[in-house]
Amino acid sequence: MLKVWGFAELKPEQKIIEEKIFEIVKRNYQKYGYTPIETPAVERTEVLTAKWWWEATSQIYGVYWLAQWASDLKKYSLRFDLTVPLARYVIDHRNELTFPFKKSFIAKVWRGERQQRWRSREFYQADIDVIWENNDQINGAQNLFYDAEVISIVYKTYGEIFQEFNLEGWVEININNKKIISWLLQSLWLEDQSLKVFGIIDSIAKISREDFDKNLKWAWCSELQIETINNFVRQEINIEKLSNLSEEFWIENEVFLEWIFELTQIMKFINMQWSAWEGVKINFWIVRGLEYYTGTVFETVITTDRKLGSIAWWGRYEWLTKYLDKKADFSWVGFSMWITRFEDYLFEKLDSEKLAKTTSEYLIINFEETVDESLKLYQKLAEEWKKIEFYPESAKLKKQFKYADGKGITYCIMLGSGELEKWVYSIKNMETWESEEIKMN
Amino acid sequence: MLKVWGFAELKPEQKIIEEKIFEIVKRNYQKYGYTPIETPAVERTEVLTAKWWWEATSQIYGVYWLAQWASDLKKYSLRFDLTVPLARYVIDHRNELTFPFKKSFIAKVWRGERQQRWRSREFYQADIDVIWENNDQINGAQNLFYDAEVISIVYKTYGEIFQEFNLEGWVEININNKKIISWLLQSLWLEDQSLKVFGIIDSIAKISREDFDKNLKWAWCSELQIETINNFVRQEINIEKLSNLSEEFWIENEVFLEWIFELTQIMKFINMQWSAWEGVKINFWIVRGLEYYTGTVFETVITTDRKLGSIAWWGRYEWLTKYLDKKADFSWVGFSMWITRFEDYLFEKLDSEKLAKTTSEYLIINFEETVDESLKLYQKLAEEWKKIEFYPESAKLKKQFKYADGKGITYCIMLGSGELEKWVYSIKNMETWESEEIKMN
Repeated sequence: MLKVWGFAELKPEQKIIEEKIFEIVKRNYQKYGYTPIETPAVERTEVLTAKWWWEATSQIYGVYWLAQWASDLKKYSLRFDLTVPLARYVIDHRNELTFPFKKSFIAKVWRGERQQRWRSREFYQADIDVIWENNDQINGAQNLFYDAEVISIVYKTYGEIFQEFNLEGWVEININNKKIISWLLQSLWLEDQSLKVFGIIDSIAKISREDFDKNLKWAWCSELQIETINNFVRQEINIEKLSNLSEEFWIENEVFLEWIFELTQIMKFINMQWSAWEGVKINFWIVRGLEYYTGTVFETVITTDRKLGSIAWWGRYEWLTKYLDKKADFSWVGFSMWITRFEDYLFEKLDSEKLAKTTSEYLIINFEETVDESLKLYQKLAEEWKKIEFYPESAKLKKQFKYADGKGITYCIMLGSGELEKWVYSIKNMETWESEEIKMN
Repeated sequence: MLKVWGFAELKPEQKIIEEKIFEIVKRNYQKYGYTPIETPAVERTEVLTAKWWWEATSQIYGVYWLAQWASDLKKYSLRFDLTVPLARYVIDHRNELTFPFKKSFIAKVWRGERQQRWRSREFYQADIDVIWENNDQINGAQNLFYDAEVISIVYKTYGEIFQEFNLEGWVEININNKKIISWLLQSLWLEDQSLKVFGIIDSIAKISREDFDKNLKWAWCSELQIETINNFVRQEINIEKLSNLSEEFWIENEVFLEWIFELTQIMKFINMQWSAWEGVKINFWIVRGLEYYTGTVFETVITTDRKLGSIAWWGRYEWLTKYLDKKADFSWVGFSMWITRFEDYLFEKLDSEKLAKTTSEYLIINFEETVDESLKLYQKLAEEWKKIEFYPESAKLKKQFKYADGKGITYCIMLGSGELEKWVYSIKNMETWESEEIKMN
């Protein structure tokens, strides 16, 4: 992808594709009531860094008005995700919104990253989230329906995108629940090393089994603990095995049972509704870092190109608004498609020679002697919502064809004096070089 | 409009409207081959300020990576329009683009403004532009066809938007050509005072005739010069009067004749193609500041609310790329819709009580005893592309209706045990409170 100071830029043929992706995403998000919102690109820095001051500042771009740079410095920043601004939005507008509040938002975010392949300092995220008030907790089920819904919608959306571009691979969504970690560390008496062990489990896909074990050893885990962690998080799991897990391991721990219950419920909802079953897999080592998440976590990979990493993720978090306002007690679950990373992958897969470089399908050739009639034809065809252009001067035919060719316009429409006499216009297919005459009515 | 640090924020019911506007704009722009592009929000400050250092810096927001704020300071900035980034884009990608290059771009720009009504520090522009190489000048007509095309497309686009929202007023596009100024000042021997006189003419709509004359007097204009300027720029003009102008005033000045020729050509093209005739007016005092423009200039007002000011403008400029690269010799003409200002106006006109607060039209009520069947119905209706939601818990009916009501969802679908027995589901219209039973097949 083209980059300016590490920020992505799109050629026309790429932006046409991006707009197709946005259209599919919007259609799928909005049909289930995930209504669009809009927040400014700029937020107060203290809002963006309320939770993770250190991590956030190393990623953030500050913004200041040149005319008063000294007083603005460090006050305002570009958002680095759409989640923290959403927390601020929900708090600011809580009295006007109806909860559960289902929202979607496709927008750019900015992150101070080192430049590298598949990373850009500016990228589009396409988020869906449901937010509800914690005093409206629902029958112990804690709105697990929504975890299933956002997973299924993202699964369907990527499915449609893969179809649209005839891609070979398929997406797979891996889900887990962070309660596994609390339980695992607790039951293995590893609570003192929790941060370290947690980080090692998070890295499991990126390092060898040997290094994984070595790292755990360095984190003061015993052979038995290492063995147990490996056996547990690496096991292949499905919905049937999940429900037998507590019996198999003789576990009656409360956190463990909650974890199993939540995962089971979500898989049940997914199965009942969207037949996303075959693409959604439970995976015990998905823990998604130390960030916001408090329950379900998800990650999305392309089965044929797992090295690309996750192209959509998110999860459930119950405390985020509290960091901004202690009295704002909301829970939510959401999913975020990392559009720009996916596009990076997509543009590598597609044959750039074959991409449409323009939105127009027809070019009306400009002949000096029939320019008035050609303009009228242009007007008429445009009114029928044909995607069409008119060449601005009566240049040599070769030049006009070259223009059509350079843009990848498929058809040239000609209304010269010969055609006019017969009261027809002709359409030339620029690929086959064949012409057809159409009667004017 | 809601504001955060002077930056606009949209409620769901407002963003739904914005998306409708974008959809209309895109459809109209793209059908004539104005293909979308994308540039980063951030550019090098020196690019943004290449032409008007002083004006630009007073408007610009700088951007710096917090992690290296000292070295980034003043290096990078948020774009303040889409035109300067486009100039940089054309220079960077000149070898891959086919000229004339027709492009569209809907995106946010940022400007350091004092906060006030109808002004926001962050706003959406929707631009169309055509760029061509100056060595490809066309038969003396200098691609005037494109001036007519962008005017007509913006006229049609606003027309459709007004229809969509049943607005009373109509847009009027005022056009002129900056060559009038060169000629007028030249013929009145006012070249020494040109900057001052120019600024006064630009302010004509905002001040009284008396103040206008007084200001000209202060700028050392004689009574006769003041009289001539008034007579000339204030006259009502149309296409017939335009062509008689040189005879009427016995003018043979070259710049004058160019000016008349260009305006006449453009009006002729507009008339031939898009029947935008009645909404496009020639107006001799439209000069649009000192900026880029070198030929045609346009401005767009709402006939019933002229005090709102211009909601779309732009023009033709022949030198912009040269400020970035002396060898980059491109001309272009473009039009920019100021979406956010128009929305500010639109939101004041629409009855906010009646706006849809969600994208979903149906809510499936959740009954505990039939939750599985209701979920299946949800799945089925969703597959038919109904815009639909499922209530996440089997709460009291009152609570579920209240949710539908709060969101403005029109229909509630119920599949309770009574309905299930009859193998029907019922649809309740939330406005009329009437129900209808539909057979399940």
